[in-house]
Amino acid sequence: MPGILYGIGVGPGDPELMTLKAVRIIKENSVIACPGTNVKETTAFKIAVKAVPELEEKELVPIDMPMVMDKEEQRKSHKRGAELIEKYLAEEQNVIFLTLGDPTIYSTFSYIQHIVENDGYKIKIVSGIPSFCAAAAALNTSLAEWTEPLHIIPAVHQTNFDLDMPGNYILMKSGSKMVSVKERLKKSSLNISMVENCGMPNEKKYENIEDIPDDAGYFSLIIAKKQ
Amino acid sequence: MPGILYGIGVGPGDPELMTLKAVRIIKENSVIACPGTNVKETTAFKIAVKAVPELEEKELVPIDMPMVMDKEEQRKSHKRGAELIEKYLAEEQNVIFLTLGDPTIYSTFSYIQHIVENDGYKIKIVSGIPSFCAAAAALNTSLAEWTEPLHIIPAVHQTNFDLDMPGNYILMKSGSKMVSVKERLKKSSLNISMVENCGMPNEKKYENIEDIPDDAGYFSLIIAKKQ
Repeated sequence: MPGILYGIGVGPGDPELMTLKAVRIIKENSVIACPGTNVKETTAFKIAVKAVPELEEKELVPIDMPMVMDKEEQRKSHKRGAELIEKYLAEEQNVIFLTLGDPTIYSTFSYIQHIVENDGYKIKIVSGIPSFCAAAAALNTSLAEWTEPLHIIPAVHQTNFDLDMPGNYILMKSGSKMVSVKERLKKSSLNISMVENCGMPNEKKYENIEDIPDDAGYFSLIIAKKQ
Repeated sequence: MPGILYGIGVGPGDPELMTLKAVRIIKENSVIACPGTNVKETTAFKIAVKAVPELEEKELVPIDMPMVMDKEEQRKSHKRGAELIEKYLAEEQNVIFLTLGDPTIYSTFSYIQHIVENDGYKIKIVSGIPSFCAAAAALNTSLAEWTEPLHIIPAVHQTNFDLDMPGNYILMKSGSKMVSVKERLKKSSLNISMVENCGMPNEKKYENIEDIPDDAGYFSLIIAKKQ
């Protein structure tokens, strides 16, 4: 019987935010894939190995999926990644694909999943704590209460997002566009807070838009709430 | 030194989706609060006790917060709940407040948190897996990819929500309004799937709006995605 591809969320950074299920399934299997050129250098691996030290001894498969905007380049690298994984599945080995946060929210796992499912293999997803939950916890703030909608916006790709919908906003990975994101937010009446590198040793919290540096890192998450 | 109030997310249903951190902090403390009239009968307790059997022997504090629409009644019951918790905090005992899913997303914990913080006590939040992540995992579907925004709508309170924003939608707890929610969704061109009681023994999945029963339960979560 062919192996199963597991998409496993390792959460946002703190190894203790991994689930019991993620830890068990990693322990039970021996082939570990991670997006990157060197598995041991990836953020996902560095998180998981602190909770599951046995990871060091497993077969580590780097899946090189560079972040490029060119659709055709993307497609090719996803295809190459999926082929690498399918080699193991065809040999009846499960593959554990580690991914930051949750595997269903802006995850590179989704791209691989579509190809591998289409090629007839079985996949399973193990949820992880999304970065925005951990950021809200770090700031001791709620994301949404009672009747408030909550809008999650991948601000890395666009900065002309609509801030007039009722409810609160999460802006993901706005680091590379921080100057224009801040401009956009200043025009709103929203309360802004931000966590950079949430749950990592270099975590920084900002509770005022004026304090947010223009050169904030890639893993910057903004919470924008109605007053 | 006064105790700390911990808001701990136990996740959506499967005890294995509890985090290592939630398990550790529950084990390390002895006073456990849960919204409800009988802690052992609450969904949050029933999930947590499967991962941490020691819970049976701890001091269990029911926080009666009935789901009422009257704002003044709500305020009173939140105040009573907070007072009950603060009695322990003042006696230098930590209180562990167990909550379904994540404590920052439509959680009863937020109401208690506001009062307890305002009264000068320290709170800490331990993230849990939100129900929508587990529902997407159960359906093997992504919630959002690449540039797609993701909108989370508490459909229990309103059914005239806007489905014309770009991106995908999660409708939370739409059970009690299912007939009108279905009517609203049928007018859209969105792909609909639903999970009822995700991660619980009575979990049911629906991948077509026509199959969703009008009398679906309270813990029904709808994922509506662009075609």
